[in-house]
Amino acid sequence: MNKKLTLKYLGYLMVIEGAFMIPAMLIALIRTETPATFGFAGTIAILLAIGGPLLLLKAENQTLYAKDGFFIVALSWIVLSLFGALPFRISGAIPSFVDAFFETVSGFTTTGSSILTEIESLPMSILYWRSFTHWLGGMGVLVFILAVIPKSAGSGVSLHILRAESPGPVVGKLVPKMRSTARLLYSIYIVMTLLEFLLLLVGGMPLFDAVTVSFGTAGTGGFAITNNSIAAYDSYYLQGVITVFMLLFSVNFNIYFLLMMKEFRAAFKDTELRVFLGIVGISILAIAVNIYQTGQELCGTFFSALHHSAFQVSTIISTTGFASVDFNQWPTFSKMILMLLMFIGASAGSTGGGMKVSRVIILGKSMLSEIKKLIHPSSVRLIRVNGKVVSPDVVHSVNSYLAAYVAILVVSTLLLSLENFSFETTFSAVVACFNNIGPGFDMVGATGNYSAFTNFGKLVLCADMLLGRLEIFPILILFSPSLWRRTK
Amino acid sequence: MNKKLTLKYLGYLMVIEGAFMIPAMLIALIRTETPATFGFAGTIAILLAIGGPLLLLKAENQTLYAKDGFFIVALSWIVLSLFGALPFRISGAIPSFVDAFFETVSGFTTTGSSILTEIESLPMSILYWRSFTHWLGGMGVLVFILAVIPKSAGSGVSLHILRAESPGPVVGKLVPKMRSTARLLYSIYIVMTLLEFLLLLVGGMPLFDAVTVSFGTAGTGGFAITNNSIAAYDSYYLQGVITVFMLLFSVNFNIYFLLMMKEFRAAFKDTELRVFLGIVGISILAIAVNIYQTGQELCGTFFSALHHSAFQVSTIISTTGFASVDFNQWPTFSKMILMLLMFIGASAGSTGGGMKVSRVIILGKSMLSEIKKLIHPSSVRLIRVNGKVVSPDVVHSVNSYLAAYVAILVVSTLLLSLENFSFETTFSAVVACFNNIGPGFDMVGATGNYSAFTNFGKLVLCADMLLGRLEIFPILILFSPSLWRRTK
Repeated sequence: MNKKLTLKYLGYLMVIEGAFMIPAMLIALIRTETPATFGFAGTIAILLAIGGPLLLLKAENQTLYAKDGFFIVALSWIVLSLFGALPFRISGAIPSFVDAFFETVSGFTTTGSSILTEIESLPMSILYWRSFTHWLGGMGVLVFILAVIPKSAGSGVSLHILRAESPGPVVGKLVPKMRSTARLLYSIYIVMTLLEFLLLLVGGMPLFDAVTVSFGTAGTGGFAITNNSIAAYDSYYLQGVITVFMLLFSVNFNIYFLLMMKEFRAAFKDTELRVFLGIVGISILAIAVNIYQTGQELCGTFFSALHHSAFQVSTIISTTGFASVDFNQWPTFSKMILMLLMFIGASAGSTGGGMKVSRVIILGKSMLSEIKKLIHPSSVRLIRVNGKVVSPDVVHSVNSYLAAYVAILVVSTLLLSLENFSFETTFSAVVACFNNIGPGFDMVGATGNYSAFTNFGKLVLCADMLLGRLEIFPILILFSPSLWRRTK
Repeated sequence: MNKKLTLKYLGYLMVIEGAFMIPAMLIALIRTETPATFGFAGTIAILLAIGGPLLLLKAENQTLYAKDGFFIVALSWIVLSLFGALPFRISGAIPSFVDAFFETVSGFTTTGSSILTEIESLPMSILYWRSFTHWLGGMGVLVFILAVIPKSAGSGVSLHILRAESPGPVVGKLVPKMRSTARLLYSIYIVMTLLEFLLLLVGGMPLFDAVTVSFGTAGTGGFAITNNSIAAYDSYYLQGVITVFMLLFSVNFNIYFLLMMKEFRAAFKDTELRVFLGIVGISILAIAVNIYQTGQELCGTFFSALHHSAFQVSTIISTTGFASVDFNQWPTFSKMILMLLMFIGASAGSTGGGMKVSRVIILGKSMLSEIKKLIHPSSVRLIRVNGKVVSPDVVHSVNSYLAAYVAILVVSTLLLSLENFSFETTFSAVVACFNNIGPGFDMVGATGNYSAFTNFGKLVLCADMLLGRLEIFPILILFSPSLWRRTK
């Protein structure tokens, strides 16, 4: 392992995290939120004190292996969350450090699960930081570093890092240079966030709400600054804008790049996009009919049923986790569809979580090829997506991913079941955290929260959130003995 | 497709099913259960009238493709269940045909889910037939046919049929001749069933109870002739015997063959056996501690906790589904372990259901090889079980199996959720039927039953039971258009 380069990356990370805390500190200063001011200033000082010297390290050896990329990403996210939790703890906004850590991991991983029972009374600077973690985690903090650090530093590692931090089975470069790809991704991200912010302002949403909601949507996170989430903005227009943007942020950013290049045909013929939109469309319709027929609250007209169905489908499949109604009260069929969408998740290369639509496509095609093979034993197993053959290596990875996914689901559910909450609470809490959604069902439903779990349970869920965001393997690799063996 | 040979096999199947109903008819005659006598006699007459002429078909072409094997097996199981349901319906013991079909599918697939709310008042002949379906379905009715039909008939198809009907990722012949393998399997099966029967008699269980409980254990089915299942035999000895035999019947029958050949080393070094016993041991201990500490009913001493934990672990992992206590009342941790065991299931080549331990092993190793590959990209993916390399084809099949398994779980749960029962009821009903277990949790728990579902819900669960017993692909193939295309 290239220790010096790893430490240098951590240095960048800490300095940049400190820099990102400055706006929150300024808000705290202006609004004379004294404990919060100390929280941010103190954390920034610590980050600079530790991160600054690391930047001065000279890493002559610039070669990094794939495993180093995974290692750097996994370690970075843990470090990021540990220090990101400090302002909550120091300011006293969240008195327990485990709670603060949970809230921060939930923020950076864009999960949006909260241990807070009362949100509106928190200082504005704290709320800002809480929502901003979503925005930073959405596109990936190391992708950000790749975009801003000098060319010379670790050009060899950049593809490995992008692979480890970006969601989906295959990660391609948009443009030949990794640094330009990272910049492009962030540019699209910033423009789309701004666009949503402006559209929310136009609809009459207060400035601070518009900022934080845009952060929460862009990262597909789900933290809101109101106790009843998006239900607080009781307007078809505002909720509609959020619905559309949740979907936009769960589309592969490659599509936007193709649109920028005016390759409209290629963009709209993309298999993952079509399947994603198909799943969204069918789910919205099925749930709308179901909740309209069974006469759910706020769904008196078919239009309102359609509106709330669209919002909930978007918030779940994008793995955002905003709430506009208490869908825990909906009939079992609607809840099951939402549960299913929790697993499927968003598209690869988006800011959303879950298994990713492209993996589901490859798994489905792999299954069909198996049936074909049983009927015609001499047939060759070939899986095509977007007209191109998917390499057996990728198919194998996706299948192993499913196995690892199930294994983690099982182990976490068993561990969390020690807390003896209901079956539905336990299982859906794990599903909601592991897929980076936020709310689950029953106790952790849209109107509930995660405060009742013990520290042990909260840490299990923190691990799930990180495993989900980094797509399992980088975190698992941390525990692999062969990583820690000396390499020549 | 070789239509003539397929029809001839169906002929064998129907005649043999008719023959197997004779004991039940005799019981009905002796006990003067008149409606049941008519039920069995009538069904036997129908089976002979349709099946007899089919036997006379001359199938010159003896070549069969793999897909024909799958097709014959899938069709046979549906036909078997349709006619097996007739005695219930004609005798009036189960007035609705869908209910009778559900009960029969549940019997043959060795699931043990019941729509009956009151069992003890049924005629003895009907109870006998109900339990006997378990025994017949356990080892497979087509394997039985292979063992008894004349050598000349369809020797080409036998391996394909054995593959399609026997559980597990790889099905080997025990001895070079398929017919001798089938006979060997049935001999072991009969001897073990007899042994359990005798041990139960020794413990003072009434004769008829000992017969039916042995059928239920051998097939890992779970139908009992008492309303409160095995709790009716309140004896550590009797419940202990059943516990041991449930485990014995969930071991790969190859192991018994090895023991018969005095190859003890090979038998006890078998990876699947070791993993299976490991899972059983750990689960029993974990649940025993959990239910003892939380002070569950009937588990006042640690020994009684251990006893009931062992019974429940065995009944679930073997996918039998007998009940000795109402484990629905146990803490969430214990319930989650049981839920997990539902998915894992028994060993390949046993009479049990579920995913099968050997598949879990291959999936686990496939996942580990993926992690290794990420750390050392140049490493070769090689998975070994029992010291032998598992072929990539088998690994691919197992992975596709998992994908298909998840897909069916998802679709069935969605369909069943239309009935609007609780989350736990809906999900566990599908899991319990698909894995051929029987009882689930909540409404379909150990003290509940499946009577409250509509005909639609019952048919969904019937499909799940058949898909589970035949390991998905034979049934899916029925719906594949390429099967129905004319072959030259």
